[in-house]
Amino acid sequence: MKAVPMVEFWRGGLLESLHLGHAVICDATGGIVEAWGDPDAVIFPRSACKMIQALPLVESGAADALGVGPSRLALACASHQGAAVHSDLVTRWLGDLGLGENDLRCGPQMPRDHAAMREVLCKGDSPCQIHNNCSGKHTGFLTLARHLGAGPEYHEVDHPVQAAVRQAFEEVTGLASPGYGIDGCSAPNFATTVHGLARAMAFFATAATRSDGRSKAADRLVSAMTAFPELVAGEGRSCTNLMRAMGGKVAVKTGAEAVFVAILPERGIGIALKVLDGADRASEAAITALLIRLGALDPGHPVVKHYLTGPIMNRAGLAVAERRLAPGFAA
Amino acid sequence: MKAVPMVEFWRGGLLESLHLGHAVICDATGGIVEAWGDPDAVIFPRSACKMIQALPLVESGAADALGVGPSRLALACASHQGAAVHSDLVTRWLGDLGLGENDLRCGPQMPRDHAAMREVLCKGDSPCQIHNNCSGKHTGFLTLARHLGAGPEYHEVDHPVQAAVRQAFEEVTGLASPGYGIDGCSAPNFATTVHGLARAMAFFATAATRSDGRSKAADRLVSAMTAFPELVAGEGRSCTNLMRAMGGKVAVKTGAEAVFVAILPERGIGIALKVLDGADRASEAAITALLIRLGALDPGHPVVKHYLTGPIMNRAGLAVAERRLAPGFAA
Repeated sequence: MKAVPMVEFWRGGLLESLHLGHAVICDATGGIVEAWGDPDAVIFPRSACKMIQALPLVESGAADALGVGPSRLALACASHQGAAVHSDLVTRWLGDLGLGENDLRCGPQMPRDHAAMREVLCKGDSPCQIHNNCSGKHTGFLTLARHLGAGPEYHEVDHPVQAAVRQAFEEVTGLASPGYGIDGCSAPNFATTVHGLARAMAFFATAATRSDGRSKAADRLVSAMTAFPELVAGEGRSCTNLMRAMGGKVAVKTGAEAVFVAILPERGIGIALKVLDGADRASEAAITALLIRLGALDPGHPVVKHYLTGPIMNRAGLAVAERRLAPGFAA
Repeated sequence: MKAVPMVEFWRGGLLESLHLGHAVICDATGGIVEAWGDPDAVIFPRSACKMIQALPLVESGAADALGVGPSRLALACASHQGAAVHSDLVTRWLGDLGLGENDLRCGPQMPRDHAAMREVLCKGDSPCQIHNNCSGKHTGFLTLARHLGAGPEYHEVDHPVQAAVRQAFEEVTGLASPGYGIDGCSAPNFATTVHGLARAMAFFATAATRSDGRSKAADRLVSAMTAFPELVAGEGRSCTNLMRAMGGKVAVKTGAEAVFVAILPERGIGIALKVLDGADRASEAAITALLIRLGALDPGHPVVKHYLTGPIMNRAGLAVAERRLAPGFAA
């Protein structure tokens, strides 16, 4: 089965652009509650699986042994925007490990945070690896590497850190990964299906009901994400705004190329979606619609206007376009 | 018929994202030489029809009467990036009309040009309407309004300027417009089909072979675009890079939501394409492929690597992904 229409953009009463995609809602058993498009479509979760990549950090005992508390766990799951709060926390975490920016392998990235970007640009500086949206995940990898007594090239696919990530990834998705790609931050990103990713999110959503080590680790990561929504992304970002709008009851995470996941502990439900063309504007609208459909997000909350129902303004402040859910999707 | 696969993005040997779209190649008669997807799909050309919106400026005699030479005609057809060269020329043009920034209706926009953006950000200024990528088009509208003795609200759909634009638009596309939307710059943007837009581009491509006023105007606009590729967009931008790569023999123009057109005077051919989801990365790859297919662009030119065949690098400088033409498109 193919990707189905999910989100439309209208202008002047005419359909201007259309986004197709796949989405799966999974229950506690990992079974499909509802799906659109092809549940078996193979995708790269990209940053939407950072909480899975952080499982070995906690499950191995590395987090406890090396003083990684909830705010650092939130950063390990984050695609942060390089604001001062993010950079300062990552810098301190690296310092506590006796490490520095040069030990990261994620590459430099201009901060998305306006004030931080302005500071870098206007001082004539260059952005550094700590500004990279994945620097928390990478510092988590360094923490695990230290705990395992493994070498410095933690981003290589055959490194013990990535071997542990792969094992956890395949176990929580319930599938052998059909392959991996190298992510924007140079870490391996293991492929799975949309169903596999939704099943993994259901594993996280039900973690508090189990007492095994991996489930305890998963529950701590979900709690960290919902306790520190501003660390998972940043002010003005969809993950932060959506988690705040749901009062910490749901964890959500986006990934590059328009992947979005949600973890609903109260319902024991996991969601995963991928927009075929990779457009964030569509994955944000689609996850907003699914969270409303599941009763997790109040349709009257201002963020819903921002990501789904509100008009799109032009540079002169006129309402010129609108988003609509495609017929048959999440309505 | 539906949109067809055009451009794929691959990572780690797996297809990660896919862009569908429509494309039409038209000959001198306005007939279809080749098409993909639905030639009758209704689209908003957005900024890809700026050369059509500039026809009345020249055809009316306004350009000659008010000293609008080739560089200003190029700016009238431009989606410039607010670099100093663009802002200075628009400012002077407005000054020659005895007008200023407040007479524009396009709204302010942060320059895309890095140096100009840095200057605005680091001075703590706000961007102004002259920085708006459409400020040249709007100054052209003001010039026509002056020549017609019409009022200041030149962007309103019933204003004589927009009435003249609509008439020219419908005549060169060969279709009554099914409607209009308000563009990012607040000007009306008339809808047409992909075939209609390609037919209009073929009209421009064959303009030099005719002696009527509109054809002479079209030929002057094509010559202005190809003579000043850096004014039509700016350094590093696809329109500028592609026109330079073809040595001024072909005019190309992009529009928001992934529209791209090309005018090939030597072949008497026009091209129009629209990527369904609105992604520029796909419309740039698709127009590059079609220009190569038609023998207008050397497949060995460095820009081809940049927009189509070259690897996609991550933040650490590793080649991590690649674009591919979808089977059956332009290959």
